[in-house]
Amino acid sequence: MPKISKNRIKQLVAFKQKKIRDEKNIFIAEGEKIVSELLNANLQIISIVATKDWIESESRISHKPVELLEANSEELKRLSCMTTPNKVIAYAEIPELLFDITKLDNKLTLVLDEIQDPGNLGTIIRISDWFGIEYVICSENSVELYNPKVLQSTMGAFLRVKVFYLNLDEFLREAKNKLKLPIFGAFLKGKNVYTTSLPSSGIIILGNESKGISKSIESIIDEKLTIPSFNLNPERIDSLNVSVATAIICSEFKRYTLK
Amino acid sequence: MPKISKNRIKQLVAFKQKKIRDEKNIFIAEGEKIVSELLNANLQIISIVATKDWIESESRISHKPVELLEANSEELKRLSCMTTPNKVIAYAEIPELLFDITKLDNKLTLVLDEIQDPGNLGTIIRISDWFGIEYVICSENSVELYNPKVLQSTMGAFLRVKVFYLNLDEFLREAKNKLKLPIFGAFLKGKNVYTTSLPSSGIIILGNESKGISKSIESIIDEKLTIPSFNLNPERIDSLNVSVATAIICSEFKRYTLK
Repeated sequence: MPKISKNRIKQLVAFKQKKIRDEKNIFIAEGEKIVSELLNANLQIISIVATKDWIESESRISHKPVELLEANSEELKRLSCMTTPNKVIAYAEIPELLFDITKLDNKLTLVLDEIQDPGNLGTIIRISDWFGIEYVICSENSVELYNPKVLQSTMGAFLRVKVFYLNLDEFLREAKNKLKLPIFGAFLKGKNVYTTSLPSSGIIILGNESKGISKSIESIIDEKLTIPSFNLNPERIDSLNVSVATAIICSEFKRYTLK
Repeated sequence: MPKISKNRIKQLVAFKQKKIRDEKNIFIAEGEKIVSELLNANLQIISIVATKDWIESESRISHKPVELLEANSEELKRLSCMTTPNKVIAYAEIPELLFDITKLDNKLTLVLDEIQDPGNLGTIIRISDWFGIEYVICSENSVELYNPKVLQSTMGAFLRVKVFYLNLDEFLREAKNKLKLPIFGAFLKGKNVYTTSLPSSGIIILGNESKGISKSIESIIDEKLTIPSFNLNPERIDSLNVSVATAIICSEFKRYTLK
């Protein structure tokens, strides 16, 4: 297997910058689990840089028209966007997805209003995958899907869940008027999610980690939902991580479909 | 306000090492939210290092017998254990807690078998606080509570939830024999958590991020629980982050107490 050259390292290190990734329409996937799923997905992989170990253990790779380069752990560390570098890094083309709102009909869809933390967005995409939610709509000011930390936290779910960045105000009005989808939002004060009857299709909005859901969107929401706290200590400061809140709310919507 | 000296920085930087923290029985709390909760808690704070801004805005500090030092962002960066340093870092004494198993009677308690990721442990403690779970028992090989990243992810909940590190095998046998608590475990294959009737007291075990619950503990478990996936795509690789799984399971146990 060809070893990676200094020159190629220099070229690939440049992809750590969002600007360069955007220009070339490339994303970086790191780690054995994600690259393994990437190899199964229908995506154009450009290059894979990996340890000798990884290359020898991955039989699927020989059937792919991919630049495959061997690197040592020092070299992988230079290429990695993570604090703990992985055995394998892949560079692949960002797929072009066309948004068609009618696809959301009769489905449950998540809408994220300015999620900022990469780990939260990634975890929410993973949760969506688990609950069979096919579409996640992000506001334009949300953290970028192809941020390497987001991809890492999805554990590969970004290859299945379709994520779009849209003007939420326009999107929500269209979903409400055209598709007649009920619109729910997660708030600190609202109807108890455990005792509210929830439909099998609709839109669930989760807001920013510190600010919650924007004022401009609030008026479009049909029902405000709350996860009540079970802690009776009044000194406690209420807070639940947004990805944890997403999991509980999705769980409540979906558990009704079991019966 | 006295500015921090080079010498004091050197002394405090040493606390970034677990060995030194253990020797001196000190933990580090970073960030405005956590330090704010620390100031309300009944703990012995040794030193607070903060920006001029923070010191001027924090009125509670003048009533505390605490070493207070002003630092600039460069100095805070040297002291910080985080990639994004905060405006304030506090050094406090690790409180001594005595474990009394009888306190778990009639309560729901979480048991963590070798949780390795600091973010997961912190998030689980935060979830426990939300659901009114007072005790979290960790196996001795779990990530350390006073790891700064764990504390950060708890968002202050570590000041309320009591966390103990115990030999799980011994602890679980005692809980089962002495307190007659039913023992539940989260598994990939088990009874559907959404349709199983769940008691208001008992023990819920969550396992390691990749290995799950240890074989040695499995035999003590009365009921294996599973969160079923709602994704019907067979190509999907099942996985739910352990802190997300904890949230859904706690939610299921607690929602029954509403009625």
